Amino acid sequence: MKENYEKYVTTMRKIADIDNAAVLLGWDKEVNMPPKGAAFRSQQIATLAGISHEMFLEKDFVSNLKKLEANKQKLSLKARRNVEITSKKQNRSNKLSTEFVMESSKAISEGYHAWLKAREQKDYGVFKKAFRKLVDLKKEECELVGYDNHPYEALMDQFEPGAKVADLDILFADVKKQLIRFTKKIATYPQVDNSFLKKKYPHQKQWDFGLEILKRIGYDFDAGRQDISPHPFTTNFAPSDVRVTTRIDERNFGSMTWSCIHEGGHALYEQGLPPQEYGLPSGLAVSLGIHESQSRLWENNVGRSLPFWEANLPLAKKYFGANLKGVGAVKFFKAINKVHPSLIRVESDELYYHFHILIRYEIEKGLIEGTYSVDNLNEVWNEKYKEYLGVKVPNDLKGILQDIHWAYGSIGYFPTYSLGSFYAAQFYAKAKKDIRGLEKQIAAGDSSQLLAWLRENVHRHGSTYSAAKLCKKITGEELNFKYFMSYARKKYKAIYDM
Amino acid sequence: MKENYEKYVTTMRKIADIDNAAVLLGWDKEVNMPPKGAAFRSQQIATLAGISHEMFLEKDFVSNLKKLEANKQKLSLKARRNVEITSKKQNRSNKLSTEFVMESSKAISEGYHAWLKAREQKDYGVFKKAFRKLVDLKKEECELVGYDNHPYEALMDQFEPGAKVADLDILFADVKKQLIRFTKKIATYPQVDNSFLKKKYPHQKQWDFGLEILKRIGYDFDAGRQDISPHPFTTNFAPSDVRVTTRIDERNFGSMTWSCIHEGGHALYEQGLPPQEYGLPSGLAVSLGIHESQSRLWENNVGRSLPFWEANLPLAKKYFGANLKGVGAVKFFKAINKVHPSLIRVESDELYYHFHILIRYEIEKGLIEGTYSVDNLNEVWNEKYKEYLGVKVPNDLKGILQDIHWAYGSIGYFPTYSLGSFYAAQFYAKAKKDIRGLEKQIAAGDSSQLLAWLRENVHRHGSTYSAAKLCKKITGEELNFKYFMSYARKKYKAIYDM
Repeated sequence: MKENYEKYVTTMRKIADIDNAAVLLGWDKEVNMPPKGAAFRSQQIATLAGISHEMFLEKDFVSNLKKLEANKQKLSLKARRNVEITSKKQNRSNKLSTEFVMESSKAISEGYHAWLKAREQKDYGVFKKAFRKLVDLKKEECELVGYDNHPYEALMDQFEPGAKVADLDILFADVKKQLIRFTKKIATYPQVDNSFLKKKYPHQKQWDFGLEILKRIGYDFDAGRQDISPHPFTTNFAPSDVRVTTRIDERNFGSMTWSCIHEGGHALYEQGLPPQEYGLPSGLAVSLGIHESQSRLWENNVGRSLPFWEANLPLAKKYFGANLKGVGAVKFFKAINKVHPSLIRVESDELYYHFHILIRYEIEKGLIEGTYSVDNLNEVWNEKYKEYLGVKVPNDLKGILQDIHWAYGSIGYFPTYSLGSFYAAQFYAKAKKDIRGLEKQIAAGDSSQLLAWLRENVHRHGSTYSAAKLCKKITGEELNFKYFMSYARKKYKAIYDM
Repeated sequence: MKENYEKYVTTMRKIADIDNAAVLLGWDKEVNMPPKGAAFRSQQIATLAGISHEMFLEKDFVSNLKKLEANKQKLSLKARRNVEITSKKQNRSNKLSTEFVMESSKAISEGYHAWLKAREQKDYGVFKKAFRKLVDLKKEECELVGYDNHPYEALMDQFEPGAKVADLDILFADVKKQLIRFTKKIATYPQVDNSFLKKKYPHQKQWDFGLEILKRIGYDFDAGRQDISPHPFTTNFAPSDVRVTTRIDERNFGSMTWSCIHEGGHALYEQGLPPQEYGLPSGLAVSLGIHESQSRLWENNVGRSLPFWEANLPLAKKYFGANLKGVGAVKFFKAINKVHPSLIRVESDELYYHFHILIRYEIEKGLIEGTYSVDNLNEVWNEKYKEYLGVKVPNDLKGILQDIHWAYGSIGYFPTYSLGSFYAAQFYAKAKKDIRGLEKQIAAGDSSQLLAWLRENVHRHGSTYSAAKLCKKITGEELNFKYFMSYARKKYKAIYDM
């Protein structure tokens, strides 16, 4: 089996080289490409994707993998997992005919254009027809791909392998029960003042400050770089080249700062993946939920904590002294954690955020089950926003048309955002137990032990353990919403003097 | 044949997509990549190169091309040329065994490292052994590939298809006879003053000025961009995305300015190639000599002319007023064209430049013929510099070790630099005949008719005509050194008041 496994590894690495080249073409498109370059660039990316796909489904590669799968008890734990994950992906690909994939691509392209048009007119009606087609195809995909208990699992599985509707139902029931009550309670206390965060924060100074903050959390600039793009993202071509982007809004201190820390968290994960496992599942992030746990742990549990700003407020004052005159760490900490319901997911605080996801989860599951219809989905949306957040949606642009995901045919993706926060809280609670005086270290500007802990417990494993197993391995128990609630209670009671 | 030709085109475009992706990986490596990214990046580029190579020599593609070649009289002129050029390239590839190619790669890698080490120690002796291996392999390559008259042609052919030693001997005999006499004569006249070009020209202002100049010569920033890199270069992924780089030396006005115009000239060619011929020879530059004719025409014939600076000196003064106070267009024109022998090729003026190439041409030809030996080549080098330029080479770093080409196994490349200048002079003479009042237009800041003339006569043809045929088609005669000499005589008589 050794020779077969090596053969498998060689092809997997070739495929990774091609995929990573395509990722660079995509990164360059967002960051550097002149406008006229778009047409040939799309063609070049499509060619690489085609070659990678062919190689992944190539006869010899498939039959070799089948042999490995049949003899997997002879392989090491890591090798076995690699073979299992790869086989699963191959099976999924094989279940979708070329015609179906092409029809889906076409529907996505049409969906995206209809969505853009609908946004212009602030009218969900314009998106409806294309969206119905997308949803029908997604339902068909569930049946083609297969699932254990609920069709929606067939979709989630691409983003969060192994995720079950039954588990998510429990998590989101907790969100509904505990978080709605808690945010309602917060709303009865006097609101914090965050007006100084909306003063003018000059572009260049924000840029320099962001780079400093990235360095302070441990991002390795010898294995990455930061650029500007309209929507911040992290991308990687190998653990030794992991790039982040940010955006700068001169009237908003937070937009750049926490996008830097958030993307920085993603990037720390990627920089910490084992380079010797390049191209194999064991060298790749295990799931989007775990990926998001890394970005949110740094963004929220660390980056919006009092200790972090005890260490870093002096740096902020070095750049923005006038704006932050008379602002102490506690006042700053309160301001950056202001809780208030908003219409837009990406502008939400970290508590109301989960209602945005809850709503999308309920709607997606309902669409796939058939209990919701595309027809009046904007009304469903608006009712849920009224019920969970207490806000009135003034138009579809600020409502159901706000996210790109559905227009791109991404159904089953949203839950990973909440999973990320919940994993983050559970991991961080454990890290605080494992690392003596962690918060004191952070207050002294030193997060190196935390990073080392994440490297050891999360990053270096790649996909060797499933998300669920990893959580159990690290924390000794399954994912449990109580860690998030207890983090939230402690933090926001302090902020709102409850 | 129509179906066969379409099949050929489809594969050629796929190959181009892969090659262009690899080119982006290379560009990014020079411009953006963090240092630790190097190892995986090299592997990714190698994987793409391997896939492209396999596709180019794939059985069905080869047999289809053979069919086309056998029936080429049924194809259009353009299609026939495409098939011929592709077949020729394929034949060359087939003549070199995988072992030979791998041995060459290894020799190049070792050559490059030996060269770096030799440069450190300023000692050609350190490079000798690796260089001998490279030269031996190149000699073997000539025999494997085959040639009509002279083995050196087998090497030149990769860079300047169809170039003949007999023709180059005539050109370089003219260089020797006419240009040595002319530069010796210039040396008897009082030298021009260019001291104001060595004042401090601040980085940011140079950057902004360079962008303006690029715009003024017609470079399309919607289909390209400029970045900084240690060695300026032009790269392209399609005619709609052609990028240039430049370098900035604050103590040298010229370094950035003419590198911008030079690379801009290359880029105008690439931006002018027909996008509908993407991936085919008819959509690619015909030869390095013709490519260099475009960069040098803009750099020297236009960019170091009096009319160009009548138009653009005011812009330069806008940025560098203090440095250029009291400098008129004529004084400026003289200063930027100062003729003096130098040791370093890339620092040379446009006349002595050709002695640098002449020497390399004589040495390369001699090495391949066997009339020169690697053993004492630095002595040969130094003697020739004494004889043709009248300069004493103080050490090998400023002598035979100055260029990277040989260390990279590029033998047969250097002559294309001189060919570029000679083609440029001949083309520009014809352009001046064809475009009424061209120099007046340029003096008024308008080079659009010149660009349109180049688009029409050079760019749009891609490789549809060979370099020799293109020259004849445009100018009515073969490449002739007299155009360069007459351009040089007229220009430098004015500069040196001869």
